[in-house]
Amino acid sequence: MPIVNCKISKNVKIFYPELVNLYNCKIGEGTQIGPFVEIQSGVVIGKNCKISSHSFICSGVKIGRGTFIGHSVTFINDKNPKAVNKKGKIIKKNEWLMENTIIGSNVSIGSSATIMCGINIGDNCIVGAGTLVLKDLKKNNKIYNKVFNELKNKK
Amino acid sequence: MPIVNCKISKNVKIFYPELVNLYNCKIGEGTQIGPFVEIQSGVVIGKNCKISSHSFICSGVKIGRGTFIGHSVTFINDKNPKAVNKKGKIIKKNEWLMENTIIGSNVSIGSSATIMCGINIGDNCIVGAGTLVLKDLKKNNKIYNKVFNELKNKK
Amino acid sequence: MPIVNCKISKNVKIFYPELVNLYNCKIGEGTQIGPFVEIQSGVVIGKNCKISSHSFICSGVKIGRGTFIGHSVTFINDKNPKAVNKKGKIIKKNEWLMENTIIGSNVSIGSSATIMCGINIGDNCIVGAGTLVLKDLKKNNKIYNKVFNELKNKK
Repeated sequence: MPIVNCKISKNVKIFYPELVNLYNCKIGEGTQIGPFVEIQSGVVIGKNCKISSHSFICSGVKIGRGTFIGHSVTFINDKNPKAVNKKGKIIKKNEWLMENTIIGSNVSIGSSATIMCGINIGDNCIVGAGTLVLKDLKKNNKIYNKVFNELKNKK
Repeated sequence: MPIVNCKISKNVKIFYPELVNLYNCKIGEGTQIGPFVEIQSGVVIGKNCKISSHSFICSGVKIGRGTFIGHSVTFINDKNPKAVNKKGKIIKKNEWLMENTIIGSNVSIGSSATIMCGINIGDNCIVGAGTLVLKDLKKNNKIYNKVFNELKNKK
Repeated sequence: MPIVNCKISKNVKIFYPELVNLYNCKIGEGTQIGPFVEIQSGVVIGKNCKISSHSFICSGVKIGRGTFIGHSVTFINDKNPKAVNKKGKIIKKNEWLMENTIIGSNVSIGSSATIMCGINIGDNCIVGAGTLVLKDLKKNNKIYNKVFNELKNKK
């Protein structure tokens, strides 16, 4: 069961503990976590969130309360990811810069969204499905994939 | 083995039954299902389909015969997904609107495509890789990611 | 443990062998492979690569040394994927055309990127997160999702 050294609050539902990879993270009371989810070291997730299947939440991410993370949502914590350093050796922890991402409460992040690091998404924001988010979103705002905006403008 | 209460017809191939999450769904004869696939309650998949690895097929989706679902294809069944209701409690089944998605026969949905709910995709349609589909597609039609169309126009 | 008939060199790290699907592939010395990764038949990966969680590397892909493959990166090997042939029978190995993809050394492919087949990506290239790559990239080049380029031009 790949749930290692996590602080899992009461009433957390992890539907298939053998099909997730959670380590050194904190999961708030009542939060639900689907299968094929990876949550890395240092992640803090508030209470009553839904973390849907196939999502990846990396080190550096904090998520408030009552936030929805859709399916196949991918967070990022390194703007210049490399496998090796200049000497060709596998990069070590102190050889790359981790950037944080803060997601507020009551946020909804649609499926297949990708969230760049170094970003804040405020409370009550909506990120549409399939959106690549590269900049901050102040609270109560919405951002969508361009395809969505184009379709809306046509109507 | 997370295959619970499913109607699996004969000659269905599920390559790694311990690496999927299937529940309360119907899988037609001869259909093949890769690893890291989730298929939810009420889904009906016809015969001789290929459901590729990392795909997510949610409640509300029906798929015809001989249809190809690529890798990391994500379906959606809720246009306004929320984790919690206005009182801050985890949303219950009767507090959100599920919208259906109907995929015809002999359809090909490319890898990394995301399919919004409330949509019909007719027989023999092609959805290119990495396409976000937000509207109906009548039978025998094609839709591609904008990057694909731009490249084609340049040539 | 779904690791079947692979040539795994020394010092390869597969963090959760029970949560990957690797078959008939070659993994170079020191390479690291995350959970929920599928690597298919015939794939060759060089030494000191990082293959991040939720990635899919299909038959026909070769990857050099020291290359970073982000999370949820999807490769493709068939431009016209179908589940069935004209007679409605599941397609066999000799009924579709596999196209190769060659990724050089010291390449960085960002998370959620999708790489079309029949493509070469040269040494030291960077593919930004969420990019659909449809054409060759000569060595030392970069390609990003349009959203990234638009944001950069605004600044």
